[in-house]
Amino acid sequence: MGESMTLYENVAERMQDLIAKGIYEPGERLPSIRRLSSQLRASINTVRDAYSLLESRRIVIARPGSGYFVARLPSSSRMRRADAFRDLSPKSITIDDLSFLILEDAKRDDMISLNLASPHPSMLPLRRISNALARAVSKSAETTVAYDLVPGRYPLRQNIARRMVDAGCAVSADEITITSGCLEAIMITLLALCRPGDTVAIESPVYYSFLQLLETLGLQIIEIPSSAEEGMNIDVLEFAVSHYPVAACITVPNFSNPLGSLMPDSSKERLARLAAERDLPIIEDDIYGEIYFGTERPRALKSFDASDEVVYCSSFSKTIAPGYRLGWVVGGKHTERIRRVKSIVSIATNSVTPVAIEGLLEEGTFDRHLRSARRSYREFMEAVRDSILGSFPSGTRVGRPKGGFVLWVELPAELDAVELYHACREQGVSLAPGTIFSAARGYRNFVRIPYVEWSPRVRTGIEIAGRCARALADHRSRKPQSSLIASPVRAEA
Amino acid sequence: MGESMTLYENVAERMQDLIAKGIYEPGERLPSIRRLSSQLRASINTVRDAYSLLESRRIVIARPGSGYFVARLPSSSRMRRADAFRDLSPKSITIDDLSFLILEDAKRDDMISLNLASPHPSMLPLRRISNALARAVSKSAETTVAYDLVPGRYPLRQNIARRMVDAGCAVSADEITITSGCLEAIMITLLALCRPGDTVAIESPVYYSFLQLLETLGLQIIEIPSSAEEGMNIDVLEFAVSHYPVAACITVPNFSNPLGSLMPDSSKERLARLAAERDLPIIEDDIYGEIYFGTERPRALKSFDASDEVVYCSSFSKTIAPGYRLGWVVGGKHTERIRRVKSIVSIATNSVTPVAIEGLLEEGTFDRHLRSARRSYREFMEAVRDSILGSFPSGTRVGRPKGGFVLWVELPAELDAVELYHACREQGVSLAPGTIFSAARGYRNFVRIPYVEWSPRVRTGIEIAGRCARALADHRSRKPQSSLIASPVRAEA
Repeated sequence: MGESMTLYENVAERMQDLIAKGIYEPGERLPSIRRLSSQLRASINTVRDAYSLLESRRIVIARPGSGYFVARLPSSSRMRRADAFRDLSPKSITIDDLSFLILEDAKRDDMISLNLASPHPSMLPLRRISNALARAVSKSAETTVAYDLVPGRYPLRQNIARRMVDAGCAVSADEITITSGCLEAIMITLLALCRPGDTVAIESPVYYSFLQLLETLGLQIIEIPSSAEEGMNIDVLEFAVSHYPVAACITVPNFSNPLGSLMPDSSKERLARLAAERDLPIIEDDIYGEIYFGTERPRALKSFDASDEVVYCSSFSKTIAPGYRLGWVVGGKHTERIRRVKSIVSIATNSVTPVAIEGLLEEGTFDRHLRSARRSYREFMEAVRDSILGSFPSGTRVGRPKGGFVLWVELPAELDAVELYHACREQGVSLAPGTIFSAARGYRNFVRIPYVEWSPRVRTGIEIAGRCARALADHRSRKPQSSLIASPVRAEA
Repeated sequence: MGESMTLYENVAERMQDLIAKGIYEPGERLPSIRRLSSQLRASINTVRDAYSLLESRRIVIARPGSGYFVARLPSSSRMRRADAFRDLSPKSITIDDLSFLILEDAKRDDMISLNLASPHPSMLPLRRISNALARAVSKSAETTVAYDLVPGRYPLRQNIARRMVDAGCAVSADEITITSGCLEAIMITLLALCRPGDTVAIESPVYYSFLQLLETLGLQIIEIPSSAEEGMNIDVLEFAVSHYPVAACITVPNFSNPLGSLMPDSSKERLARLAAERDLPIIEDDIYGEIYFGTERPRALKSFDASDEVVYCSSFSKTIAPGYRLGWVVGGKHTERIRRVKSIVSIATNSVTPVAIEGLLEEGTFDRHLRSARRSYREFMEAVRDSILGSFPSGTRVGRPKGGFVLWVELPAELDAVELYHACREQGVSLAPGTIFSAARGYRNFVRIPYVEWSPRVRTGIEIAGRCARALADHRSRKPQSSLIASPVRAEA
């Protein structure tokens, strides 16, 4: 977009924009050089140079004899193999203050928060769950005040076991332990499997709460590159576990946050095999597994887990009630240790919300609710995505996730998402900059935007954010690049 | 009791029994040698030798010119200064399987569990809290499904701040953070204040969950001797913190579990001053503070805390509903860090039970309920205590706590509480052996028995336990001591 752009760079920019907007989708064939030359009124050589540039940026793939195709992955999340294996040694974490700031923002009424990947109350079975809760209390008041000791109520565990069949899992109620949300499930598993100082392999980019949790528990990490199409790179994970003592691995195979990636079944199978071969406990977070936009629920990694090394964690926070703090863990061969830690750190999960959720599940209307919720989320995703592409500067790229709650937005390379965060915040809008999704503070030109609702407020928030991003982009294009790179904006205290 | 007892030992035994039964209370003057000689039909010399023996056992104190008095502390919990300072170096913890076994026992319907220091549902304001819950859900269904982000609902924090005035504390709602029970409050405080490998000073004997928690978090401990009358020995604590790097200290000044001790205000004041002088964070667990049998609620350590080093933790688990898992922490100068950890490990506390408890507190009937509950617990304490003294072997000693939920029972020295635990378990009764209340596995001739209810079932449980203890005592007295000590009964897997 800069004034100094040459003609072929300009053509490349326009093509990149069309791809980012989804006019040409990943894997799709692009117009031939001849056709594009006439479409854009540019010379054959200019178009050829533009395609070469896009190829070097990994946005386009040239297939000799067939033409040019849109690369299957956004350039950002795709891996250059050399990069992927570079410096995998375990590292300790220092939490970015920004990840706490965005949580503070989410509490402010005077701010449009595009932060929480948490369902809007209008998307929850509000009346039904409240009725189930009221029924539970009136029917069994004693049950709701007494301890619901580990592993938690059998009928609820049975209902969960039945639902897990959809994910390809045949686990019995006896293998399930009720927890205070998915995060507690992951925490107790980490406490059960790791000693302080141990190393845990995680995805990159990764849900910032995992970084905070691992830092708090005194654990080290190895960040394994992940892509929107493949999820965690298993080649790199295999390399890491064969070179470093990795105590456990956390992965979100289905619709990870922030990538929205879906790991293919073949990769899940390979990952489960790797776990078995290496005696490597894998903590699977499947919290988004039921928020899929396709025809079938994706399988859980756990469903490929012949060796029982996979610890499956999930919750009802995305589908019934985040405020209920109700999740569960299937501990596999680590069940006994995990249960001990659960009773140590919290004695029990609260006794009220399990009875309510059990009642709702037994009512038999939950799947109907979920079907309609999935349709809505898909519509929200398209609307938020269109709104982003319409508001943000040209060159902004957004994938089209097959499920989950978030869009991982790649800004033009010269934009700084932390700078954007602060600029937006001054305008009363808060959104998560890419840097908080990696201990290495990468992803400087990314932001994460959830699509948990679609409202005038959200639309306004995105428009304001887009305007801020465009202003920053304009500003950038008028300044020499080098000085900008040398003066990154720091997070305020 | 053995056949080989000499006459004066026999007299000493009988006196010890009278003291244990509370016929002569701590601090009280005992009959003169002459009077006892005529009462017991024993020679003056025999009675004098008996008193000397009791004196050497620290059960009796001789005050020249005034006579003999019952020692103010049970011999067990009283400290010999030489012992108290011996080997205070930080130690790592290996959790005893028994502490998990007794939790498992508590879940079994076919067993009389004398384990949980948790209120019986009949002692809770069941109808009122259920109504408050139903009201909360019908009035604000949206509130109960959405996240109640850290620090938690303001109205509830305000109500808690008002209640804390009773404990002598003037803390504002802004200083309070809602947690999932008192144990989570302590856990997040430890995570906020300590790094793995750090040393925490704790009481001895100590609530076994603290040992489990500290071990799980990779922390080391120094066990500070505590007595029923004084609580944690502050001389020893001061010695420990001046010789070792102590990162924090956990104490239960009001009605500790298992000792039932109440720290005098003068000691609380001294402890708060020590915290200030040494920049030593003190984690105060005041969960039993409202279960007092006297006329006034004991003051919290926090009320003496001018330097804001004391982190006050409590919950409604003993007074409203253990199953609600609702507690709070007043973080003092550490509030910000504690709140961060809270949001990291659990995002939020569940949103349902805070609204219910808030409703109950605002109703204004809770204090009336508490007054009546305190009267009942005091009656239960006397009944359980009498039942123990009536059922257990002669020589068994039980204090008379001024509040809280538990009796710390000293068995005759030759009895092994772990052996007793296993013997009782075979008879369908489970009770906590003293060894689980110390990482050093001390207190081998102690058991903890709660008085949270008084029912035929509890009476039967105590009678069976007493019978087992008597059988073991008889068995012991017929065997040479040495061989018994050499073959301790091991915990079953």
